[in-house]
Amino acid sequence: MDFVTILDYIGTYAFAISGVRLAARKNFDIFGAYVVGFVTAVGGGTIRDMMLSMTPFWMLQPSYVNITAIALLTVIVFKRWVVRLEYTFFLFDAIGLGLFTVVGIDKTLGAGFPMWVAMIMGCITGAAGGMMRDIFINEIPLIFRKDIYAMACVAGGVVFWLVTLTGAHIIIAQSAAAVCVMLTRILCVHWKVNLPALKGD
Amino acid sequence: MDFVTILDYIGTYAFAISGVRLAARKNFDIFGAYVVGFVTAVGGGTIRDMMLSMTPFWMLQPSYVNITAIALLTVIVFKRWVVRLEYTFFLFDAIGLGLFTVVGIDKTLGAGFPMWVAMIMGCITGAAGGMMRDIFINEIPLIFRKDIYAMACVAGGVVFWLVTLTGAHIIIAQSAAAVCVMLTRILCVHWKVNLPALKGD
Amino acid sequence: MDFVTILDYIGTYAFAISGVRLAARKNFDIFGAYVVGFVTAVGGGTIRDMMLSMTPFWMLQPSYVNITAIALLTVIVFKRWVVRLEYTFFLFDAIGLGLFTVVGIDKTLGAGFPMWVAMIMGCITGAAGGMMRDIFINEIPLIFRKDIYAMACVAGGVVFWLVTLTGAHIIIAQSAAAVCVMLTRILCVHWKVNLPALKGD
Repeated sequence: MDFVTILDYIGTYAFAISGVRLAARKNFDIFGAYVVGFVTAVGGGTIRDMMLSMTPFWMLQPSYVNITAIALLTVIVFKRWVVRLEYTFFLFDAIGLGLFTVVGIDKTLGAGFPMWVAMIMGCITGAAGGMMRDIFINEIPLIFRKDIYAMACVAGGVVFWLVTLTGAHIIIAQSAAAVCVMLTRILCVHWKVNLPALKGD
Repeated sequence: MDFVTILDYIGTYAFAISGVRLAARKNFDIFGAYVVGFVTAVGGGTIRDMMLSMTPFWMLQPSYVNITAIALLTVIVFKRWVVRLEYTFFLFDAIGLGLFTVVGIDKTLGAGFPMWVAMIMGCITGAAGGMMRDIFINEIPLIFRKDIYAMACVAGGVVFWLVTLTGAHIIIAQSAAAVCVMLTRILCVHWKVNLPALKGD
Repeated sequence: MDFVTILDYIGTYAFAISGVRLAARKNFDIFGAYVVGFVTAVGGGTIRDMMLSMTPFWMLQPSYVNITAIALLTVIVFKRWVVRLEYTFFLFDAIGLGLFTVVGIDKTLGAGFPMWVAMIMGCITGAAGGMMRDIFINEIPLIFRKDIYAMACVAGGVVFWLVTLTGAHIIIAQSAAAVCVMLTRILCVHWKVNLPALKGD
């Protein structure tokens, strides 16, 4: 198991934990919590793959189904531990966000689409799962109202594009983009940076 | 028209009735009620087909569109009759759930996916339409909070898998799985069996 | 740029404006407002293309991404102007509805599906974006409860079908259908015509 796969699994685990915990706050049963965790973890990549006319990635090997089960068990058995490690899970989530964005960009370029489509797909891969989670628990999606989240994916996409323009190796573009997403996310939460909100008429 | 087709249509009718009735409780207009009924009836199979890279089944022949229209008419014209026959519609719904689960498993295995993917697709075929219905009427999906519903599809998938392991004919696995889903659903409602709910932190 | 393309862009712009404005009423941030505007504008056509096993149309050229950005800027910079031109945007929206319906019908017939599927896809192309917008902002979809909206797409589909039955040229069927959708929409709002609502039991 290579380094990227390990990061992918850590990100999946953190995303699933966030889904299960929000479902628990609404008193979902264990099946419902599993579904919300799974959708949070794989929802973004599933929409991306369906738009790229590909089979959703989680149908090709059972790791994602199993990691979500481990996340559900973690929340049930080690609830206090999860609450105490809040910040660790936030970091894992940021790692997942960075990695998922880069995976989305890569897969879209590999399918022959131009960079601007890849940047959108990076965003969808990173942020659409959390959006689906919020729709399932009947809340207005958090990513539309709080924190820099999807914008971190956009920033990562821009960095990816700029680095490829320099002619650097793809690995450098990927690493720079992933680090950019993670840092943007972590620093914006740290400094409480938000996007300006619109006002209704 | 063979026996399985008749069961399929009965299940579609029962699912559509449940969608139209919930839409009526929110005072949807007749078009909105039709859409919610249709999505309840065909939504699960549509998601399955799109994930399997197939054309959604209801686009290939007009029966499902017509059955939903009949369900809408039933609710409008025979409202009292629908309320009085509540238990009959519950049984029809359980029949639909069992049949849809088996159809989902079959179609997924036929597309060359392994058993664990087929079990998930059986679940999606049976339960995702009801989930979409609840999102449309702006409620937290019932299947995440009440009764054994999607878990009955999981139980049916396990039975299907166990029977195929014995080397029995596929017809036996299909029948056993469908009956398992129906009985699990009916008995759990009868005995008021629920899954344990999670508590938030 | 031909006449149909211009109408398509005007419709996209009007749809995006409606999404951004509703997001603004819920105090979404600018990224969230962009996403809601984009989904309102391209959501219906995206669902249609995925059901037809095609690549979503907006991934093939960047106009729709750019038009949504212009719509977002319009709402931010010219808010009063947008409020004052309320009726103009309503007309643009009706133009978009008519054109999107016809595009949906055409694309579906071109993919080899029969007329009844094309009529449904015309409806989805015109109305599903607004439905997704309302789910994102956590409201019960307006099109299920108020005004003649999706029914205008149905009326346009019927007109398209009847005109093709006469053997007339496809251009005549397309124009008649688009005009029918626009007039139905505009006149029903003008005369306050609504579909009857259902009552719960």
